[in-house]
Order: sequence, then C-alpha cells, then structure tokens
Amino acid sequence: MIVLFTDFGLEGPYVGQMTAELYRRAEGQAVINLFSDAPAHEPKLAAYLLAAYADEFPPGTVFLAVVDPGVGGVRAPAAVEADDRWYVGPENGLFAVLAGRARRYRWWQITWQAERLSATFHGRDLFAPVAAMLAVGAPPPGEPREPAALLRPNWPEDLPAVIYIDHFGNAMTGLRADVLGAETVLQIGRHRVSRARTFSEAAPGAVFWYENANGLAEIAVNRGRADRVLGLSLGDSVEVAAR
Amino acid sequence: MIVLFTDFGLEGPYVGQMTAELYRRAEGQAVINLFSDAPAHEPKLAAYLLAAYADEFPPGTVFLAVVDPGVGGVRAPAAVEADDRWYVGPENGLFAVLAGRARRYRWWQITWQAERLSATFHGRDLFAPVAAMLAVGAPPPGEPREPAALLRPNWPEDLPAVIYIDHFGNAMTGLRADVLGAETVLQIGRHRVSRARTFSEAAPGAVFWYENANGLAEIAVNRGRADRVLGLSLGDSVEVAAR
Amino acid sequence: MIVLFTDFGLEGPYVGQMTAELYRRAEGQAVINLFSDAPAHEPKLAAYLLAAYADEFPPGTVFLAVVDPGVGGVRAPAAVEADDRWYVGPENGLFAVLAGRARRYRWWQITWQAERLSATFHGRDLFAPVAAMLAVGAPPPGEPREPAALLRPNWPEDLPAVIYIDHFGNAMTGLRADVLGAETVLQIGRHRVSRARTFSEAAPGAVFWYENANGLAEIAVNRGRADRVLGLSLGDSVEVAAR
Repeated sequence: MIVLFTDFGLEGPYVGQMTAELYRRAEGQAVINLFSDAPAHEPKLAAYLLAAYADEFPPGTVFLAVVDPGVGGVRAPAAVEADDRWYVGPENGLFAVLAGRARRYRWWQITWQAERLSATFHGRDLFAPVAAMLAVGAPPPGEPREPAALLRPNWPEDLPAVIYIDHFGNAMTGLRADVLGAETVLQIGRHRVSRARTFSEAAPGAVFWYENANGLAEIAVNRGRADRVLGLSLGDSVEVAAR
Repeated sequence: MIVLFTDFGLEGPYVGQMTAELYRRAEGQAVINLFSDAPAHEPKLAAYLLAAYADEFPPGTVFLAVVDPGVGGVRAPAAVEADDRWYVGPENGLFAVLAGRARRYRWWQITWQAERLSATFHGRDLFAPVAAMLAVGAPPPGEPREPAALLRPNWPEDLPAVIYIDHFGNAMTGLRADVLGAETVLQIGRHRVSRARTFSEAAPGAVFWYENANGLAEIAVNRGRADRVLGLSLGDSVEVAAR
Repeated sequence: MIVLFTDFGLEGPYVGQMTAELYRRAEGQAVINLFSDAPAHEPKLAAYLLAAYADEFPPGTVFLAVVDPGVGGVRAPAAVEADDRWYVGPENGLFAVLAGRARRYRWWQITWQAERLSATFHGRDLFAPVAAMLAVGAPPPGEPREPAALLRPNWPEDLPAVIYIDHFGNAMTGLRADVLGAETVLQIGRHRVSRARTFSEAAPGAVFWYENANGLAEIAVNRGRADRVLGLSLGDSVEVAAR
C-alpha cells in the first residue's frame, strides 16, 4: 500500500499525476490519498501531522510525503525506514518527528536519477518512482546515511500549536492526548478549554478538546465550528494552562 | 464494489483512512467515493439523496454511509439489506427513505466489536470493517431485527426541500421528477419555476427545473448558478405551486 | 489506464458515478482522476490544458474528457485516436489542440446507443461506457470520419491566456515554454514578468514565469499567490512583450 501525504491541493492534476506514476511502476498496489491538504509550505506543522497519522498503517506501507517549499533548491531527497514503514520525500524536517518517536529508523539519501526531472515537480518525477520501487520490494536507490545525520531540527516532542483544521472546523493540535492526560486545560487566546470524551458529551455550542481518532488533542465545538468560534488559524499557539 | 457516502469532507484524511481500511480487509474490491459532501450533520436531507443515488448501482454493492451527528452517543449501528444492496452506517434515519421505497428490506443491529474503537471515528473503526465483511460475502455481524423496528421517522415520501447544491450551483430537491410530472411549477421563495428537458432548451440566464440524471427535480440556471440567482441554501423549502 | 479530465467539480457524485461505470465495464483497469476542475464550460481553455497534460501518459491510455456546455444539444460525441492515445468526449473543440499537435490522428463519431441516456449526464451514460470499451481493446463504436472533419476552430497554436489557476495560486498559460524561449518577458496587465528556472531562484515575493512540469509557461510568486498579487482570473490575456 502506498499512501500520499502532500500539500498539493485537492484541485488540479498533481495527485492524479503522481497516482498514475505509481500505478505504472507498482502495478497492483493500492494507492491511498491520505492528505492532499497537509499544511502548505510548512514542513514543521506537517511533520507532527504525518507522525500521528502514519501510525495506523500496517508494516510495509510506503508513504510518499511531499511538503516541500524548497523544491528545486538544495534539500536532499530521502528514503526513511522507521518501525517497518517507509517514507519518501524531501529531507527538510518532514520526517523528524516520526523518526524521533520511532523505536528504530534508518535512512538513505536518494541518488537515483530520473529520466526526466522537472525543476518543480519532484513528487511525480523523483519521489513517486522511488516510492514505487520500495512498494514492490526493491532496496532504496541511494546511499545509506548515519541515522543521526537525518535532519532533526530542534523541535519539541509535542507541538503546542494548531497543525490542521478539518472540514468541520475542528482544530488538531500537535499535542498527543495521552501525554496531556484527562485533566489538562488548554488555553487558546482568551479561551480556556477542558477535555470531553466525545461530541455528544458536550452541550451544543460548547467548546472542548478531545482525543481524536489518531491520538491528537483536537479542539472542537459541538454542532459548531471551532475555527470560527475561536478565530483559529493554522500555526496558532495553544498553551497548556493546567493539568 | 464498496461505495462511500459521507459528510466527511473532501479535505482531510477521513476518506483516505476509511479507504485504506476497506482495501486491507476486502482486497481486490473497488472502492468508489460517491459523496464526501453529503449534507453535513443532516441525516434527513442525506436520506433522500442516498435513496436517489443508490439506485444505479448493481446488486451486491455495499454502501458505507455515514452522516452521524450523534457519533459517540446512543444511535445503533446498522446493516441494512434493501433490494439486494447493502448499507452500513448509523441508524438515525439515514436508511429510512430507501427502506420505505424498497420492494423488501431486512436489517441487523451490528454487534461486532472493533479491536480499537475511537470515540469519534466509527466510520473507520466500526462501519468500514463491517462493510468490508459484507463485500467479501460474510454474513452481517449482528442481530437480525424486525424490519418494522428500523428507525423510520415520520418523513414524507418526497421531500420538498433543497437536499444538495452541486459544483455548478444547481440545487437538487428531494422531489422525484416522475412523481411531479411535466407540467409542475415549483415555487422557491418568490420565484415560479417551470420544467425544461435539458440545459440547452433554456435561454441563457433562465431559471428552470429538470429531471436530473438520478431522477430528482433539480433547479438550475442555464450558464448561471441557481444557488446565487435564487439565494438558495441547503434545506430551503420548495413548494409545488401547480401541476 | 483510463484518465478523467472534466469540469464536474471535486464535490458531488459525478466523478464517483463515472468511475463506478468504468470499473464495472473495464474491470481491473486503473482509473485516474486527473482534473475534475478543468475550466468550467470553457472547451477552448480546456483544450490547451488537455493537450499539455495528455503527453506524459503512455500509449494506450484512454482519456475520458468532458467539458460540455452543450450537453443535450447537437454537438457530436467523438472518439479520437491521436499518437496512440484515445480520447472520448464531446466534439466541441476540446480535442482540436491535441489533434493539431499530433503526428497523426483519426476519429469516429460515436453511434453507440446507451440503454439509458439521461439528458444531462452523458459523461456517465455515453462517454464512460465508450471509454471502457476502448480501454479493454474493443474498436470505437461509431462511424470513422475524415480527420479534416474533426471540429477545429480557428484557434492559435499556443493560447496567450490563463488556462488554469492551481491550489497555490499559480497561473498556467496556454503558451508552451519551449516555444517562448528563455529570454521572453510576459506582460500581464501592467506587470512585466521574466523567466526563472524554479521557485528557489526567485526572491520571496517576486513574480516570475517558469516552465511548469508539463511544459507550459506558468506565472508564479515565490511563497505567494500569483492570482492574488496580479489579480488574475481564468481566461485573462497574457502578452509576449519581448523575446
């Protein structure tokens, strides 16, 4: 199974072009479009999102993960193996959080040369072919590197910030609920927000946070939009006010 | 074939997560994302939409249908067999319209226990696994219930309201065109709207209604947006003014 | 492989309905959704977009291409074979640009009669079944016509206009970069725009044009949105100011 995690947008040809490349090179593999609206141009926010959502996929899954403001620049292309899952994409910190949480990881700097390499669409021309190779069991086409050499910016274990706002206006944070515990109150701007187990526990219109289905602390309003009620945007800070 | 009908949104991971679950548990089955923008939190509007769109799928199709404002609350999880198609989702009225129109139907209250059941994403954790079981020919993992016990709110046969607004601004109603007939005039706010067979029959800018490709009366403007011209929103009433 | 190119929108059931039809009739074929947001109701703009994006697909690919403001009217349904790829859709100019650039092409007027033909959704009822037939190797179900009889409006080789605006606000033009050359300056409204090779070559906030990954001249702003900075809309004129 190959899983797409990109900021390429729902619109336009990009996801389709990558999917076509994957089908051609890894026939019979299922291709899942997990996120095409990962935080645009924000590898840091995206890194916490990817780490939370990769967890539920089985061993052997290959993630094609591209949030790449530096395309055409100097960041290295990487293939990372962490806890028996593969990740292919730009080495710009996108894999730092999952590597930091993994029991073990290895990585390779990709040296494979595409027949055709456009200046701006490495997702199709470089990362998709490499993801397809890994999905069919080929070894990573690159140089093994020291694990410690993987770009690991000085980011915290959990990120007290909004990392994704969904269709319903719920705001995912980069904080894991099991690290916070049940009594934690989150401060967002002037609002203090307590935990609920689920939507039906909260009164209509009430703001609460809960453990979402992937373990993240997520801010929500029962039958309302947390993003509008609280005026939230991607990247906004969240404070742990009390435990 | 497994068909997704949800209000989970185009954005975000939810459809991808459910699709991954289906591919893992029902290998080789085609998965079609029919609606991921069904009327949000509105099982009543969604019930008329689902009934109109399920019809064209072949016997054996399994619908994974989730419009579930009460997730985490007390509504029962259901598997419904109606006219040789299967439906899996929350028993909150979502299946009431199609059951009412079916020549015959049966249903089961799902009793299968997920290894992992999140409080808020039963689409992935409960309904997708059950849909996969049915797609591969397993019996419904639950208790057969009396057909009459299926939640059947006191809703009309056809719903005189806007149940979906599409990409082009066309407004589908919950009224079936063949029930209305050719001479029916619809009243929407202050506008009286006559029937046309197709877009090219109407003058540019003219408002009309027509039988859409799934049998519903749909309000449209040739080369314009009916939602803007008429100021329409989901749930707005439509009146049968004259036949 | 069957590739969808439509203006049916990301939302709603239309792409799913066509995909279901394709899976049923051409089992085992991969179906790729390339564009569902091709220029709405604009076969001319769409024709340049389709010609640029079809190129990268392998011989034998079948494109199901529907941008069809005249649905229900008199335009002919067509199957076109150009440089070993197939195209199925309305003969309204949508295939004119790719036919003009092809080394060779042939075409057929589709005469196949659908069991069920709705007045407004020929994508599902007519074009998808025909695309499925071609994908499984059947001959085109229609009358061969003289190549010269294919609708070829008097459109230029390259179109100096915005033909698509993507998720990032980049504006694709109907101009091929290799026809323009490296020194060409584009004039858009009051702005004069020079070429860069890639985003990282441009200063943050700078406007530039570059050869996109499909060979089109595309107007962009590094870490910004060209559509907003330049006030661009679909169809806006672009002028070649200097070479």
